[in-house]
Amino acid sequence: MVEALAVLAFALSGLVAAARKRLDAVGLSVVAGLTAFGGGTVRDVLLDRRPFFWVEHAAWLWALLALTVLAITFMRARHLSPTLRATQWPDAIGMGLFTANGTLIALGAGLPAIVAVLMGTITAVFGGVLRDIVCNEIPAAFSDHRPYALCAFAGGWALVAAHALQAPEWAALGVSVATATGLRAWAMVTGYTLPRWGGDQTEGD
Amino acid sequence: MVEALAVLAFALSGLVAAARKRLDAVGLSVVAGLTAFGGGTVRDVLLDRRPFFWVEHAAWLWALLALTVLAITFMRARHLSPTLRATQWPDAIGMGLFTANGTLIALGAGLPAIVAVLMGTITAVFGGVLRDIVCNEIPAAFSDHRPYALCAFAGGWALVAAHALQAPEWAALGVSVATATGLRAWAMVTGYTLPRWGGDQTEGD
Amino acid sequence: MVEALAVLAFALSGLVAAARKRLDAVGLSVVAGLTAFGGGTVRDVLLDRRPFFWVEHAAWLWALLALTVLAITFMRARHLSPTLRATQWPDAIGMGLFTANGTLIALGAGLPAIVAVLMGTITAVFGGVLRDIVCNEIPAAFSDHRPYALCAFAGGWALVAAHALQAPEWAALGVSVATATGLRAWAMVTGYTLPRWGGDQTEGD
Repeated sequence: MVEALAVLAFALSGLVAAARKRLDAVGLSVVAGLTAFGGGTVRDVLLDRRPFFWVEHAAWLWALLALTVLAITFMRARHLSPTLRATQWPDAIGMGLFTANGTLIALGAGLPAIVAVLMGTITAVFGGVLRDIVCNEIPAAFSDHRPYALCAFAGGWALVAAHALQAPEWAALGVSVATATGLRAWAMVTGYTLPRWGGDQTEGD
Repeated sequence: MVEALAVLAFALSGLVAAARKRLDAVGLSVVAGLTAFGGGTVRDVLLDRRPFFWVEHAAWLWALLALTVLAITFMRARHLSPTLRATQWPDAIGMGLFTANGTLIALGAGLPAIVAVLMGTITAVFGGVLRDIVCNEIPAAFSDHRPYALCAFAGGWALVAAHALQAPEWAALGVSVATATGLRAWAMVTGYTLPRWGGDQTEGD
Repeated sequence: MVEALAVLAFALSGLVAAARKRLDAVGLSVVAGLTAFGGGTVRDVLLDRRPFFWVEHAAWLWALLALTVLAITFMRARHLSPTLRATQWPDAIGMGLFTANGTLIALGAGLPAIVAVLMGTITAVFGGVLRDIVCNEIPAAFSDHRPYALCAFAGGWALVAAHALQAPEWAALGVSVATATGLRAWAMVTGYTLPRWGGDQTEGD
């Protein structure tokens, strides 16, 4: 149920990005799908895991198509910003869930801790990265100076730590989601931005 | 033979896109190759199939190099638009063939119908998507409001339906290609565009 | 040791590209990592090889993180151009090493010569291609009219030739690296550019 909300939030952020770029119906559904399932798919390709989430649960693909049809029918330009704001919180929860889940899968595959954390972060972040690449933007996760991937990274380490302390699986997952989502929520509430890199002088290139 | 025409049409569309962006000889051949083989390669990575088409039939890589050399030697800027127009029809046929073939392969791998149709569509469309990403454009398949991926999608379902009715393989493939290519031909002849999404008001963002 | 220099050169070129685009700390480390390990990872996905280099040697990921922290702390805008110039030579050596290694791995997997050479070239070039895609640029390897991929291509064939003549492995690798790096060094010293494609007339599109 919470997971469904997370996938929905990711898909909606894809829909909004695609609508802003005036993509057509095909673009809307592809970008929504890439945002929702892209991170997990990249992780599974890297880990050589099959079947993918969206192959095992093909009903999600139907849900995505239905969501796109609804969006085309009912969404108007004035809805875009409110939609994005409304999805921020489910998105933060989704990011935590995707991180914890991705890290746990990679740990279970026997990978070193740093690689597992990286896989968790990829699961959480690469959907949005693919969305931005297809929309011909520099990925927001790499350029907006707001902590997003860093929260996922911290959440992944929380899971690794809990795992090393032999916490039961549900506790490890809970700690991880709480860390990632909590940090993100804190950053959203306080408007924290990452310290800027020192190169503020313009360069002639 | 028809398949060779299709690959050639895809490669030429890559060459024209690369030439318009003033890429160099390396860029021309890479973009031509990505356009021609990218869709099938993405499908094979997702399905975990090896060897790839272009590994099994490495002669195609030589053909591609020869095509690039020919293009660099003989193609001039005034040829670009006519080349693109001339490749529209083989491209429509190639799209149908790639769709039918990709869907059949995925069905044979025991995937659910919607996933198989998706794989067929990816086979047909993602070569062009990769071409546009490398050329730093929003993929035309997602933004030009002309049905392309939708024709592939319909063609994929035609194959699934024929398969479910236990049609022989050649008949299923034929129906699928006819549906995808026929719809695309109809759209090209009539200049049909997808209904625009309702957000015509500009948004302050 | 030489290999470490090569990976370092690739990572630094990613850091500089990311800094020029004003990416944040996350973007700096991701782009540095993609540039350094992207080519080998794409090759390994295509060849279905696991574990990846950076999974087997996870210490490299730590080194990358340390490098990013150092860059954020000490690098200033006025350092960017000198850094790029200073990495040109290790980059040329790295390109040769990655080519030779990638081609040898693909030959060992029993692939045809042209596919093996292609894999070697992908290993050497695709890190930079992914860097440019994420930075929302047309890949320099395809558009700057300087031979880079072509040097890798030639180096790959040198390895194939040495292999066919039953040269011992170290000799084949040496010939390959010397060819690729030597050609690149010659192009850098002489400022050679690829002959331009004939389409110099502007086109109305």
